[in-house]
Amino acid sequence: MNNKLQQMLRHNGLKERIVDSETAAGWIKDGMTVGLSGFTRAGDVKAMPGALVEKAKQEEFCLDVYTGASLGSDTDQIMTDAGIVCKRLPFQVDQRMREEINQGNISFIDQHLSHTAESVRNGSLNRIDAAIIEAVAITEEGWIVPSTSVGNSAVFAEEADMIIVELNMAQPADLEGMHDIYHMGRQGERGPIPLRDVEDRIGTTAIPVNPEKIQGIIVTKELDSPSTVTSPDETTKAMAGHLIDFLKNEYAHGNAEKELPPLQSGIGTVANAVFHGLLDSEFTNLEVYSEVLQDAVFDLMDAGKVRFASGCSITLSGEKMNKVFPKLEDYRDQLVLRPQELSNHPEIIRRLGLISINTALEADIYGNVNSTHVNGTNMMNGIGGSGDFARNARTAIFVTKSIAKNGDISSVVPFVSHVDHTEHDVDILVTEQGYADLRGLAPRERAAEIIQHCVHPLYKEQLWSYFQRACEEAGGQTPHLLEEALTWHVQMQKEGTMREAAMKI
Amino acid sequence: MNNKLQQMLRHNGLKERIVDSETAAGWIKDGMTVGLSGFTRAGDVKAMPGALVEKAKQEEFCLDVYTGASLGSDTDQIMTDAGIVCKRLPFQVDQRMREEINQGNISFIDQHLSHTAESVRNGSLNRIDAAIIEAVAITEEGWIVPSTSVGNSAVFAEEADMIIVELNMAQPADLEGMHDIYHMGRQGERGPIPLRDVEDRIGTTAIPVNPEKIQGIIVTKELDSPSTVTSPDETTKAMAGHLIDFLKNEYAHGNAEKELPPLQSGIGTVANAVFHGLLDSEFTNLEVYSEVLQDAVFDLMDAGKVRFASGCSITLSGEKMNKVFPKLEDYRDQLVLRPQELSNHPEIIRRLGLISINTALEADIYGNVNSTHVNGTNMMNGIGGSGDFARNARTAIFVTKSIAKNGDISSVVPFVSHVDHTEHDVDILVTEQGYADLRGLAPRERAAEIIQHCVHPLYKEQLWSYFQRACEEAGGQTPHLLEEALTWHVQMQKEGTMREAAMKI
Repeated sequence: MNNKLQQMLRHNGLKERIVDSETAAGWIKDGMTVGLSGFTRAGDVKAMPGALVEKAKQEEFCLDVYTGASLGSDTDQIMTDAGIVCKRLPFQVDQRMREEINQGNISFIDQHLSHTAESVRNGSLNRIDAAIIEAVAITEEGWIVPSTSVGNSAVFAEEADMIIVELNMAQPADLEGMHDIYHMGRQGERGPIPLRDVEDRIGTTAIPVNPEKIQGIIVTKELDSPSTVTSPDETTKAMAGHLIDFLKNEYAHGNAEKELPPLQSGIGTVANAVFHGLLDSEFTNLEVYSEVLQDAVFDLMDAGKVRFASGCSITLSGEKMNKVFPKLEDYRDQLVLRPQELSNHPEIIRRLGLISINTALEADIYGNVNSTHVNGTNMMNGIGGSGDFARNARTAIFVTKSIAKNGDISSVVPFVSHVDHTEHDVDILVTEQGYADLRGLAPRERAAEIIQHCVHPLYKEQLWSYFQRACEEAGGQTPHLLEEALTWHVQMQKEGTMREAAMKI
Repeated sequence: MNNKLQQMLRHNGLKERIVDSETAAGWIKDGMTVGLSGFTRAGDVKAMPGALVEKAKQEEFCLDVYTGASLGSDTDQIMTDAGIVCKRLPFQVDQRMREEINQGNISFIDQHLSHTAESVRNGSLNRIDAAIIEAVAITEEGWIVPSTSVGNSAVFAEEADMIIVELNMAQPADLEGMHDIYHMGRQGERGPIPLRDVEDRIGTTAIPVNPEKIQGIIVTKELDSPSTVTSPDETTKAMAGHLIDFLKNEYAHGNAEKELPPLQSGIGTVANAVFHGLLDSEFTNLEVYSEVLQDAVFDLMDAGKVRFASGCSITLSGEKMNKVFPKLEDYRDQLVLRPQELSNHPEIIRRLGLISINTALEADIYGNVNSTHVNGTNMMNGIGGSGDFARNARTAIFVTKSIAKNGDISSVVPFVSHVDHTEHDVDILVTEQGYADLRGLAPRERAAEIIQHCVHPLYKEQLWSYFQRACEEAGGQTPHLLEEALTWHVQMQKEGTMREAAMKI
């Protein structure tokens, strides 16, 4: 055993449990529920999925696969192609798996990311047969030090009958000490979560486990799949600009240096653009309490703009990994990674009073938001943590481009084809056209604000017409013409554009 | 000042502030925002609304009226008729006000009941100009002892510029000491809420205020409006039976005496029937952590079945008031009333792991729930606390009769006309036909479970047909035929029945 590996695997009794992935794959049986580490491509296991796919060439089997969130390394794709996934939760982004989900061949539970751990613990979901977790170390006590994400690894390890650890030699060893693993305890037997500030540490730096449960250790050497967030374009820059205008209007009190409540931001291009926009703003001393820490958070730390960032994973581009990982030590006092039930916990989100920023697929004129379903039927990715944050945030902001597909789709529609966030949980809607401040408004007032500030000129007149006719002909708290409500989507399905349906109005 | 009043008004400096309601109404000006006590008919102010209505005969004015929840004494009706309400939140049940809301003449913000206090405190809503609060006492320090509800009274008093107290001599004086007023503090500056068990007391028994802010005290002598919950009928009894069957299947472990996690139950006939059903069940040592404490909770306490009940209001029938109020002292160790942001707080609901029971107006085959909007447009009452509980409960149960209007309406439809609770937050659906256990199921699996167990025979075949054709023709995670999705509601609007639309399928 070489020096580095000795430092990584410090529990003496476990040294003899190093196995190859083929051996470990042999322990996984048909019908098992496996809990994999990994959150937005970060900290996922690199060897076991491939080994399971190999095993599937010899024998037929099917697994329920639970994770933190999405995986990298095409793991969901190769598992899908091998036909070894029966049920999948709580989030995924792979194109191939999406196809099988939408064809009804893989059963997908789209779940609030803070709920999975609770559901596993209280028996609403299956018992975890095997937890398969990437780590940068196993401590003297046999505890597991996660790598670039925590996700649901702690609860999987806690509840599993068997644990398989992948010790990844390519991940930065300096990650050790940056995690904060809090043991939530069972509902009805637990106390308050003692976290009061974004930088508080309330747990251990490794996942406490009975080392006897660690049945095998696999050594790997492969970095996470780099993130693929595209750079801001004119539209996303405009959206970021409006959002920052809102923040200025809300928090500008004549101070030269302005502070904000802690920020949460979903993954994606717009979120990245907003954070880049903050680089050039007068806001300073920022705090981040979020799920995924992307490139821009590190840019903001480098610029001295972000004081502290709490997340559940570090998901970086290849370029940024090369810059950040060698000097990770420099961020030690500004960074913490926690289990997703803690990063997304209603108790903490409400206590800290976060400003949350998440992406909508479409919104209706009353501000109900669809985050997941294309035309109400086909799953895109999943609700992720957006519900955890939007419901409990001080200010829940949703962003979306006002049109898609060169204007064939209006992102603001009469009636959303699927609801993930109800109007109760949507405070601010931002498009490249402007922002609508919906706080303290009744639905009819919300509609006027949204149509005026957020809708693309291509569809503005038609939405005014729909709204006015709905008020006159149907009335009600939330006026709708039910025969017309979904016609834009029907037209989209049939003709590939909403324009004609809108023109008829 | 008589003896009883002296005992009720114990702050010396405030004795000279006793005024009549006409005088106090003079302080309320056009455009003001007033915060009224009152939650589900309990503890509302009895004199000031009438005085304001009188004042409206002399001068025109309009107010934004914030409350805990619904009021009694026809208050919302007379204020509506007088035309003095511009905006109303967060909940109401009055028929006349509902009409004006649905005609767009009163702006109604339908809000999660735990959110109002936070929105007032963080400035998302208006500043409170005047808090008008019913009390059973003002202490030596000038603090306010609420009556049969706490609602939002604490935050209104805290944030208001002016406070008017109605000292109600008809309410039981023994209520003093039964409240638990916790000062939440501002977001970002607060710590954990130190409540670990339903019976914990973490605050004061009166609302702490600066007595200087109490501008007037009005003496009243009128009981709360009695509740109007109807007795269980065959259908609600069947629903309660199925729900209790679920609880038995979930929590029966061969013990003669069975215990349950703490229960929350929304207001209404079904909830009452469920609690009556528990009277005859083997469950014992029950705990209630809920909003409204209705007749049945006291029956369960009398029968030794409920160990402790925490609520936000006591709302009883006239008969029950006569029995309970004279011997209120007997319940002192088993009862606490808290602010609604505490009774409905996500932090506590999740920590305690409640079983929550709330009523659906309609549900779709995937388990999305509409609690508020008739045919997607007309407001019934409001979402109330159902969202606070369902999102954060250990097990979120929704109940609804499978049909309404003698079968002209199916409460399970292809596509709900309005969404208050997404499928993510609905674990169990109960009708008089049976219950569907949706935990750990993907949408297509949920649909099969719901159609099989919850749908009325009148509509069962048609919903199977819709679901199967949606799977074949549209596919997707949540298969829908968008052209057909809302046709049942359209038919209902046009013909007063869903049957024809369903027959066409």
